[in-house]
Parts: sequence; structure tokens; C-alpha cells
Amino acid sequence: MVTNAWKTIQSTMAEIRDLGSVVALLSWDQETYMPPKGVTARAEQLATLQGLQHEQLVDPELGEAIALVDTNPSLTELEQAQIRELKFERERATRVPTDLVKEIARTQARALGSWGQARKAQRFELFADDLSHLVELRRAMADAYGAPSGGERYDALLEGYERGMRVTRLEPLLQTLRDWLVPAVQIISQHPNPQSQFLEGHFASNEQWTFATQLLGAMGFDTQAGRLDKSVHPFTTSFDPQDVRITTRIFENLPLSSVFSTIHEAGHALYEQGLPLSQRRNILCSAASMGLHESQSRLWENLVGRSLAFWNAFLPQYQQLFPQQLGKVLVEQFYAAVNRVCPSLIRVEADEVTYNLHVILRFELELALMRDDLPVREIPGAWNDLCQKLLGVVPSHDTEGVLQDIHWAWGEFGYFPTYAIGNLYSATLMNAAEREMPELWPTIGEGKLAPLREWLNRNVHRWGRTREAEVIVRTSTGKGLNADDFIGYLKRKYEPIFGVTLPSAPASAAAD
Amino acid sequence: MVTNAWKTIQSTMAEIRDLGSVVALLSWDQETYMPPKGVTARAEQLATLQGLQHEQLVDPELGEAIALVDTNPSLTELEQAQIRELKFERERATRVPTDLVKEIARTQARALGSWGQARKAQRFELFADDLSHLVELRRAMADAYGAPSGGERYDALLEGYERGMRVTRLEPLLQTLRDWLVPAVQIISQHPNPQSQFLEGHFASNEQWTFATQLLGAMGFDTQAGRLDKSVHPFTTSFDPQDVRITTRIFENLPLSSVFSTIHEAGHALYEQGLPLSQRRNILCSAASMGLHESQSRLWENLVGRSLAFWNAFLPQYQQLFPQQLGKVLVEQFYAAVNRVCPSLIRVEADEVTYNLHVILRFELELALMRDDLPVREIPGAWNDLCQKLLGVVPSHDTEGVLQDIHWAWGEFGYFPTYAIGNLYSATLMNAAEREMPELWPTIGEGKLAPLREWLNRNVHRWGRTREAEVIVRTSTGKGLNADDFIGYLKRKYEPIFGVTLPSAPASAAAD
Repeated sequence: MVTNAWKTIQSTMAEIRDLGSVVALLSWDQETYMPPKGVTARAEQLATLQGLQHEQLVDPELGEAIALVDTNPSLTELEQAQIRELKFERERATRVPTDLVKEIARTQARALGSWGQARKAQRFELFADDLSHLVELRRAMADAYGAPSGGERYDALLEGYERGMRVTRLEPLLQTLRDWLVPAVQIISQHPNPQSQFLEGHFASNEQWTFATQLLGAMGFDTQAGRLDKSVHPFTTSFDPQDVRITTRIFENLPLSSVFSTIHEAGHALYEQGLPLSQRRNILCSAASMGLHESQSRLWENLVGRSLAFWNAFLPQYQQLFPQQLGKVLVEQFYAAVNRVCPSLIRVEADEVTYNLHVILRFELELALMRDDLPVREIPGAWNDLCQKLLGVVPSHDTEGVLQDIHWAWGEFGYFPTYAIGNLYSATLMNAAEREMPELWPTIGEGKLAPLREWLNRNVHRWGRTREAEVIVRTSTGKGLNADDFIGYLKRKYEPIFGVTLPSAPASAAAD
Repeated sequence: MVTNAWKTIQSTMAEIRDLGSVVALLSWDQETYMPPKGVTARAEQLATLQGLQHEQLVDPELGEAIALVDTNPSLTELEQAQIRELKFERERATRVPTDLVKEIARTQARALGSWGQARKAQRFELFADDLSHLVELRRAMADAYGAPSGGERYDALLEGYERGMRVTRLEPLLQTLRDWLVPAVQIISQHPNPQSQFLEGHFASNEQWTFATQLLGAMGFDTQAGRLDKSVHPFTTSFDPQDVRITTRIFENLPLSSVFSTIHEAGHALYEQGLPLSQRRNILCSAASMGLHESQSRLWENLVGRSLAFWNAFLPQYQQLFPQQLGKVLVEQFYAAVNRVCPSLIRVEADEVTYNLHVILRFELELALMRDDLPVREIPGAWNDLCQKLLGVVPSHDTEGVLQDIHWAWGEFGYFPTYAIGNLYSATLMNAAEREMPELWPTIGEGKLAPLREWLNRNVHRWGRTREAEVIVRTSTGKGLNADDFIGYLKRKYEPIFGVTLPSAPASAAAD
């Protein structure tokens, strides 16, 4: 395609991408290096750039160019994919009135403030008014997007993170998980957790940093095309496949925090670094969905990073850095210690068995909020009830309950399910990788992670956004989103660790 | 003013400022933290943002709004200043054809590459073609701007860095400097330099960093509104008065490099942090000229940072960090050692006596280039001849001669004179500060730098761009740009250090 309309599309898409990358840099800088007083000007810079990005996307000239090109029979498959994705973003953007966008931005800023204050005071009420307002605004936004055919309001929000996902698809999947997880966690909880006193010492920050960079090197994170920094909350952001930034946090009394956050973020980063460079500055050079993104981080963090083979390879390096604390630990002891299971209150600290229960809790409340079935003031009670039912524990105050996550203060509803989707995809992908590479685990046991990284690149990363997440997974594994692979993985892994028999995976698990 | 036109002006100006701040952040990141492969995407992001900034500035809607407001008699003085400055920027921007802007951008990118290669090969010829092209393009740009009335082509470029400055004004000033400096340097060169062996040891990086941050603290650099990082070439950049970034570089065998680059950049930074917050996101919240900016960095670096009083206060701290190397050094010895004078080849390493000769050299060549009096291929010969005449030394190859500065590879002509203007202003400002504060030097001797910083803030920083640089200096000192204050300063300072009698300041020195 070399028409003028096509050129307009390409140049506009490139500018929209550039603006998005710059917004990401502004946010990265804000979380890593920005001095405290910089926050006022930064908010204005972000608003200006996001405004320009929105203007470019809804510009009628772009709409006309897309209309001209759309039905052109000479479009290649990749060009069709570009148009499809761009139309999707543009149509969503044009449906939302500018006033609503601005009102949400203003309310978010206020809500982040009251959320912070409510956390300090451990009192949800201080956050309730702003949250009510955000819930109303997001309902309005979802209604502006419009529910997909046969769907409901929540679907319109889900769609923004996980194309094509629907409540009707998610609910049975999460129900299956819940039905298996709740009794499984009860069984496990009756058995003592593995010993882990050797992790309770003092682990110097510098050596933790060294180990984190060693892990990045082993995983094949390209430090010429990215970097590791520190921030309060670990995150990954990308300005280009050749400039991917990740962060970690280091606690000298909690050594595993930097280890697993680094592996997790590096999983995200390998996806970003592995996106198709041929589609650079183009809408296709991005991840297919948030769930698929999370599958990469969780696969590396849990399926690889908490495996015996992995620690066979990397415990010796870790021991060299911390000979006093870890010198005498056997790899089996270490493996068991990083796989403790304990129902707890805080999602981001949850082990991989209980983690999805935290997601289910949030999904159920979000769904009720979007269905007008739950008044905002009743959220804390509903949270605590559900926490008791799902995890058997109850927060002693709101800060370790409903106030723990920042997502709602951002006004993000519909995001949490992508964490569970990521967990499910990670098991399905790993099963396929194991099948295709019989030598996979022995290779990992030698510290060679390139074959797995390359498999993920071939099967996931390189597709970018040319196809939907589930199509990518189905093409490379033969299976779509399902719960049984993940449940099977947990069962195989945790039965021997705890010496228990866990329930069988239900036949209904496959939602495929 | 609350008309719609005024609102348009304010919001557009704010967006232009935001885009400028973001461009500055992109450049800062590129010099400090960006991974090497990020450079391709970064170039595109920069081009997109600069393009958007240009579009906003030349937008006819802005022009109409300015025209509507311009003659409104109810404009306050500040509002008039805003319109004046915005019109100036807009008119310059509209005069340059977009194709020329793009051609310069492309040629710059290529020239930076060939400049780097030429430096490595120590051969100017490798850079000559791109430089020729840039010279032609800048001539075309200057002609598009148009020479100010009664002026010449070079004036149109000067105007971009130093409003109102003209060749007719600069030439006699620089001639006066030259007439005094050349014999003065010859006299000084016949005397031995002060001893400085104690600076030849190994100075650990961490302690150098600590001292740099101590200096920043003493100067009153607000670390809540800015930060210090490392980069290959030290620089200052600002995204807002409350987010000002400076860098330094540390050589373990050249301890003064980090000391004086930190003081220099902090001088720039205090200007930026001291700009009027009431004018934030507005064109007035910026420096009045590059020369005035440089006066701040040079004043702190040289007039303060190389004074006996300053080291009376700070040598003890420095000695505490480097007791072995500096423990036995007397403050008089240290003061003398940081004031060695030696004609040398490299501008950025020049002492404050010879420094302006480096500027004069560049100014003369630039002027000849813009007047079509010097073919590009003859630059190296002209450089070496002039270097011999001015400094009495000749480069052994082009990398320590004509290839040393990056400015011409950027296509910047007309910038170098602002370094000399900064030196001249710094002496005039310091004279006035001394007159108004008889206790200034004793206070500095106690390490109290706040009175000087506050004086500079009241007399320079807080005016932002509400008036021209020279008006600011004249208002606070009673004198405009002149050479005699600076010459007088050098004479008073260096006669006792070298035990010499230097020429009197010529009567013609005042160009005021």
C-alpha cells in the first residue's frame, strides 16, 4: 500500500506510538528518579501528552484515511491487522466524550490522594466518596463504549485489557478454579509449611542487586536494550523493543522479594524486547493482551523461578553471594522454602496457589459494582466476607483489605481478571513447551534458559498484536484459555511438597 | 484578560512549554540512563515531539489570538511581556520553511556521526562535507529569519541565543578582551604556575560524589526540586523550576573535574530553580538569555568557586574526605592550585584567563563562515593559525583543534559568544553584589552562600524572561555588558597569585 491515505495512517500511528512511549518514559521517571516537587509539572506534562495522543486518535482525517483503505483488496494480512487494531482503538476513543475523559482524570487524581489518606488512617470511609464517583464514571464510560453484542457492561471494560474476553467466559473458569482451590488450600493448610529460617537473616543490598543482574543475564534480558532500576513498586515499561525498563525493590530482611520481582518483571520485559521490530512504531508492535503479558511474567516467576531445576542451576551463585546465610542450604530445602503456601491478606505477597483466590475476590466485587448490585459503602463488608469464604482469613483493618490495591483508585475496573488469565495461560504454554522440548527441564537445570526464551519468542512474543491472545496461545499449544492445565500443574507440584493428595482437576475445567 | 483569545494563548503556551519540558526529559534520559540500543526510537520520539511543538507554535489560530489580544490596552505589563516573547518565538518559527527544518534535522544526525568518526580518525576531512552542508543550511536559515535592521546574517543566529546582541556590539568587546588577554597571558606564562602535586593522587569516586553533594547543599540547590546524576559531559536541564536536573563526571585521577563541573552546573540550576513559579508553564518562566545563564554558572564556578574565601570554608570538608591526599595542604596552596593559568588547546579545560580566547577563536571563524569569507575546507588551517596567534599553541591534530566541540556538528553557529558574554556579566554582577553586601566575602568564608544566592535570585533569576538580559543586568548593577569589570577582576586576582603586573584595563573596555 502506498496511497496517501495509507501514508497518513502510518505517520499518525507512528506519532501516536511515539506519544505513548513518551508518556511511558514520563511515568518511569516519576517512579524512579523524579525529585518529589517535580510531581506538579509532571502531571501537567502527562495530561498534555495524553490529550495530544487522544486528539491524534480521534482526528477525523485519520478516520477518513482508514475508511479509504479499509476495503482495499490489496491489503496484506499484516496491513489488515494494523487497520483492524487501529480501528478498534479509534472507535473506542471516539465513543467517549472528552468531558468524561477529563472528569475521570480529575477524579483519579483526587482519588489517589484520598486513597493514600484512607490507607494511612486505615479507614475506607475516607476513600468512599471518590471511589463512588469513579465507579459512576466508569459505568458511564463502559456505557459509552457499549457492551459487546450479547454482553454486559463489565465486558466493555474487560475488552480494554483482554480483547474478546467476556463475563460469560470468565465466570465459569474462575468458578472452576475456586471450586478446586478452596478445598486444596484447606488441605495444604493442615500441613506444616517447609522450613525457611535461612531466609530470615540479613541480605546486603549490593549482593541482592548483583544476583538480580545475574538472573537477568541468564534469562537473556538484553541490557543494551533495557535496564534495571529500583522503585517502590516493581514494574515494567517499554518505550520500544530496544528500550525496555524494569524495576525491582530490595528489602535486606526479605531477600526473595528482589529475586522474584526481578524474574517476574524480566518475564514481562522479554515479551517487550521480543516484539516484532519489523512493526516498530506501529500498533502491531505491542502485546496481544494484558493476560498474555502476565502469562510471561508468571511463567518465569513461578513455573520456572520456583522450580527445582532452576535452583539447581542458580542456588550455587546465590550461595556464593550469601555464603553465611545460605552456604549450607540444600537445593531441595531451598526449593521447598520458596514454595510455601499460606492463605494471607495481601495479593502481591500471595503464593501461587492462593493468588487466584485474591483475583476472584476482586472480580466478584467489581462485577457487582458494575451491575449496580453493590453500593460502594458496603464494599468493605463484602470484601471481608468473601475473604473469609475464599481464604479463611479476615483483614483486621481496611488497609490490609479493600484499600490494598491501587487499581480502583486509578479507576481501573476489569483489570484484575487478567492476572488470573495470565496464570492460566502460563501453565498451558509451559505444558506445550515441555512437550515440544523433552530436554527443557534438564536444560534449565544447567542454567540454560535460552531454549525456553526462544520458544516463547517464537510462539508468543514475535506475534505482537497481529492476532488475539487466545489465538496465539491456541496456535502454539493446541488449547485456548482453560483452568485444567493450571490446576494440573499445582496438583503435580504441591502434592509432593506437602505430602498431600489434592482434589482431582474437575472435568469442567476446560472452558475451551 | 479573560477573553477567549487570551485563553487560547495561555493553553497553547502551556502545551508548548510542556512539550519543551518533555523534549528536555527525553534528552536528559538519553545522556544519563538510556540503554544504547534505545537511540533509534529516541530519535523518532524527539522528532515527533519537536514537530508537534513547532506545529503548535505556527498554528494560525494562535496567530489570530495573538493579533486579537496584542493591542488590547488592558494588558498588564506581565501580559505584554508574554505576548512580546511569544510573538518573537512564533515569528521566528513561521519564517523557516518546514522543509529546511527537516533538512537541518537530517543533516545534524548525519553530521554527528561523521564528526564522531572524524574525531576518532583525527581527520577533519571526514567531517567537512556534512559541515559544509550544515553551514549552507544555517546560512539559509539565517536568511529566512532575516538580519535585524542594520545587521548582518550572523546577527539573525545570535538573536536566537542572546536577544538583541549584534556583531557590531560583540566585535569591539571581544577585541578589547583580546587586546588585554593576549599580552596578559604572555606575562603570566613567563612565571611558574602554583604547585599542585597534591591533586595528582587517586581520589575515590564515592568521596568525590559526597563532596559534590555537600557543595550542592551549601549552594542551596534544592534536592527536592532537582537531582544530580552522572553523564559523559556535564550539563543542566530543566523541566520546571521544581524539577531541575544536573550532571557531573568523575575522574579518579582528576578530582577538580567533578568539583568545578558540579559548581558550574549548580550555578545554572539555581537560575532555573529560581525562575518565577508564578509564571509556570508560561514563556516568561525561562532564562532571559544564554549569556545570562552562563553568567550564573561562571560566577559560581570561578568568581566564587575559585576564591580564597570559598576554600577557607570548604577545604576542611574536602580534606576530611581525602585526608591522605589533602590533609596537609594549606588553603593558600589549594587556592593557588585551582587558579593555575596555562594556554591550552581544549576550551572546556581552559582556565578562566585563557577561556575567552577560545571563544574569540570560534567567533571569528563562525563570522567568516557566515559571511562567506572562509571555505569550510580551510577551517583547520584558519583554526591553527588563530590558535597560535591567540594562545601561542597549535593542535597536533584536528581532534584537539577544530573537531573538539560538538556545537558545529549540531549546526549551532552563534552560540559560542554567549560563553564570553556570560564571563563578562559574571564580573559585573559580582562587583554589584560586593558593593551592596560589604559582608559578602566574610560570609562566603564561613561557608554561608545563601546571601549571594538570594541576591542573584532577586536581581537575576526571579525576572525570568520578563525583560532582556542586559536590562536585567543594568537594572541590578547600573552597567550593561562591558569588558572592564571582567578584566579588572582578572587583574586584581591574578597579579598577586603570579606576582606580576598585568596591563591596565583599556579605557575602551566599556562598550556600554
